[in-house]
Amino acid sequence: MSLVVIGTVAFDAIETPFGKTEKIVGGAATYASLAASYFYDQTKIVAVVGDDFKKEDIDDFGKHGIDVEGLQIKKGEKSFFWSGKYHNDMNSRDTLITELNVLENFDPIIPESYQDCEYLMLGNLTPQVQQTVIKRMKKRPKLIVMDTMNFWMDIAMDDLLETIKMIDVLTINDAEARQLSGEYSLVKAAHKILKMGPKYLIIKKGEHGALLFNEDSIFSAPALPLADVFDPTGAGDTFAGGFIGYLAKVGSINFSNMKNAIIYGSALASFCVEKFGTEKLKNLSDKEVSDRVQEFVDLSSFTI
Amino acid sequence: MSLVVIGTVAFDAIETPFGKTEKIVGGAATYASLAASYFYDQTKIVAVVGDDFKKEDIDDFGKHGIDVEGLQIKKGEKSFFWSGKYHNDMNSRDTLITELNVLENFDPIIPESYQDCEYLMLGNLTPQVQQTVIKRMKKRPKLIVMDTMNFWMDIAMDDLLETIKMIDVLTINDAEARQLSGEYSLVKAAHKILKMGPKYLIIKKGEHGALLFNEDSIFSAPALPLADVFDPTGAGDTFAGGFIGYLAKVGSINFSNMKNAIIYGSALASFCVEKFGTEKLKNLSDKEVSDRVQEFVDLSSFTI
Repeated sequence: MSLVVIGTVAFDAIETPFGKTEKIVGGAATYASLAASYFYDQTKIVAVVGDDFKKEDIDDFGKHGIDVEGLQIKKGEKSFFWSGKYHNDMNSRDTLITELNVLENFDPIIPESYQDCEYLMLGNLTPQVQQTVIKRMKKRPKLIVMDTMNFWMDIAMDDLLETIKMIDVLTINDAEARQLSGEYSLVKAAHKILKMGPKYLIIKKGEHGALLFNEDSIFSAPALPLADVFDPTGAGDTFAGGFIGYLAKVGSINFSNMKNAIIYGSALASFCVEKFGTEKLKNLSDKEVSDRVQEFVDLSSFTI
Repeated sequence: MSLVVIGTVAFDAIETPFGKTEKIVGGAATYASLAASYFYDQTKIVAVVGDDFKKEDIDDFGKHGIDVEGLQIKKGEKSFFWSGKYHNDMNSRDTLITELNVLENFDPIIPESYQDCEYLMLGNLTPQVQQTVIKRMKKRPKLIVMDTMNFWMDIAMDDLLETIKMIDVLTINDAEARQLSGEYSLVKAAHKILKMGPKYLIIKKGEHGALLFNEDSIFSAPALPLADVFDPTGAGDTFAGGFIGYLAKVGSINFSNMKNAIIYGSALASFCVEKFGTEKLKNLSDKEVSDRVQEFVDLSSFTI
């Protein structure tokens, strides 16, 4: 029994109104696996890096009990690199540099020891590669969660629709839900998207929280209002990782557990944005996490 | 003991992607008093119309138990008229016509029978007139709620700041909170605005719900995800009217009751947008209202 996370493990250079970083470790699989590791101790990653990736950086996964057997290290090649600059409102950003490097020919390898995968997190990556991972699992995982973005809707919609058919939970933001469905109303968008394959749809609305849809029900989760968002990079990946990590821990998939999983994912995402990169996410205590979850309870509860 | 609502009673001509109306009855005081009347039977309005306003339209207030002694009817003058066209996303609109008419020299008269006012709703209107109403109350009401908009921040900021000092609860949208405070973060904006006078601030976020702030606490209320928004006109006024009407009914002002008041106000606002103008709002049963409130409970509850 394990939770396998596929996605990028990469270098980011980030500029926000609060400062800028050199190359730091980032990537969807990094954020998602770190987040999942707070709830589930059998988290394993599938990803690729170049030999510019330092041993200490890889050791950081081990410190969180994350299995890196599926992390390929390509000799003589460089890791995926992304550089971006956030605008003052932190809701929009410019990509300054994208160097695909090792990602250009990424052929995901699923180690034999990963074939016990019950929970599969497909972090943001080309839909083709996401699909390959599903196909390489000898037994279909109990739950497949997929994160994606508008970029793939622009350039690989057919692949994306193929992959969406094979999954259980899709996580996208509100603009992406509108783009994917061609509907402005999120309720109508959700109805259309649920007909494309997934049984559950999570629409991430950033500072406005998230919506969970299945055929019959909707759950509206709040976001924690924050005085400062220091660096939003990886918040969506952290949310998704926390979400699936919590579900792997409780081991039972139903709407009620999904609601809680969204709260736990949102709690971790709210930590993620407090510092640059994974800095905050790497060093949380269980008490910090449970206190933050309680803040979500206090924030949204009422008794009628 | 009564709830006095001041604001516009007016004609609107509305165009949305779903259709358009001739001149129909609208105005902040109309929506707010109708909403309040579902919870509280001592609702009274202060407003002004011209003699183009029909007797049937005035009778509609009476049918909801709303006292119109404070509704001035100006002979030989015309009622305030607004015409607007909503864009496809329903979140933005163009004003086509604004005819101030009777509103140009509106001097609010508070009938003696209104001096038992405990709850005062200052609907969107010039801050100067809102202030006059407060001053003409012989005894300060127990709770003063004020709604306003960016227009007054643009042209009458000093008056607005003067009036805000005198109230208990301010309701504005997120863009207006940012404009009023000069802060992008809504948490920082709220801290600044609470220092301007009000003890409570409600930030309305439309389809993303609402936030209630006081010095120590924050409450995040969901919005009901709707498949169709037919006509958003008056939703904010309806929300504010439902909010203060519910508080007048329970009669005790604390954070917990305010949270419920926001849910009740949101429930009425969710009806308001389902048809043109006040059509839906005029004909709700108690069961429809309580069922809708239950939808809000189901939408946002989770158990950790």
